[in-house]
Amino acid sequence: KKRSIKDYSFSNRGKTLEDEIDEANDFYLQQQLAVIHKKPVPIQIVKVEYPSRSAAVIREAYFRTPSTTDYNGIYDGYHIDFDAKETESKTSFPLKNVHPHQVDHMAVVAKQQGICFLLIRFSSIERYFVVPLEMLQNAWGRMLTGGRKSIPLSEFEEQAIEVTPSYGPRIDYLQAVRQILP
Amino acid sequence: KKRSIKDYSFSNRGKTLEDEIDEANDFYLQQQLAVIHKKPVPIQIVKVEYPSRSAAVIREAYFRTPSTTDYNGIYDGYHIDFDAKETESKTSFPLKNVHPHQVDHMAVVAKQQGICFLLIRFSSIERYFVVPLEMLQNAWGRMLTGGRKSIPLSEFEEQAIEVTPSYGPRIDYLQAVRQILP
Ligand SMILES: [Mg+2]
Ligand SMILES: [Mg+2]
Repeated sequence: KKRSIKDYSFSNRGKTLEDEIDEANDFYLQQQLAVIHKKPVPIQIVKVEYPSRSAAVIREAYFRTPSTTDYNGIYDGYHIDFDAKETESKTSFPLKNVHPHQVDHMAVVAKQQGICFLLIRFSSIERYFVVPLEMLQNAWGRMLTGGRKSIPLSEFEEQAIEVTPSYGPRIDYLQAVRQILP
Repeated sequence: KKRSIKDYSFSNRGKTLEDEIDEANDFYLQQQLAVIHKKPVPIQIVKVEYPSRSAAVIREAYFRTPSTTDYNGIYDGYHIDFDAKETESKTSFPLKNVHPHQVDHMAVVAKQQGICFLLIRFSSIERYFVVPLEMLQNAWGRMLTGGRKSIPLSEFEEQAIEVTPSYGPRIDYLQAVRQILP
């Protein structure tokens, strides 16, 4: 189906989900609504050169597996901890996109009363959902006990909180998060 | 003054303050007391090689200035945000060790009801203090209005919370943090 110009003006214009979250986080910071940042990618540095009169240059380094989620911060006294995931599927979210250590990390954070979730974008149909940890844990447990390895879109529609793109910021995910606060 | 063997067994044995905090954070995680992590160092990646059949290698990258503090996490529902600083001085802590953007960052986090502080080690005399944001802000404001550019040890003794090294973990800084909770 060909997109009209009007549709296109509503689209994310090729932005990644991370770009969109950065935008929202910048907005929240400026408006003093929340302080949420993306964590830097963890790197194992092996070799650094120190050229005279210029900045140190890393010449050999490797990507490490993150042991936590990508985003955390604070919103109105609540500790916020989440990860962002994108899928091209139109019908379900494959759980292989989630790392077991991320589920473990969110579980211990939730035990300390943190607010944990996934922010998932179905890129092909441009729909966004905040998935509370409990919903993820249910699907995860179902997979571990031999059930399906993905979460169907219908389950998102029933159990997750949809984020409808709007303006300033386009993906105002805290609107959805407000609905899962205790 | 020469150190006796007994003194030495109490010392940090050449560990950096960051090593000691990692130790404490590991302990807190294992005991399910808190989930606090050091953020990775932010890196600007310029060139990555993808050798066949082995891991991607970063071949050119630069250190970026962190825009936040080094540590954050959650403790019993409280969002925790702090930075670690060491000084060799025996008499005062030089404020040049603190970056203005760190003070700004902690101010916005505190507005969201986060618990913000510095964990400072006087390495030469092996004393450790948790410095509440308010104490830092007072000293910072004094400096900006032409006053002294450091915080004297006596002020730490009066206004900060001292962390006495003990066992398991050696620097149990949450003991001190408990005293600055609302
Ligand atoms: Mg991610
Ligand atoms: Mg530091």
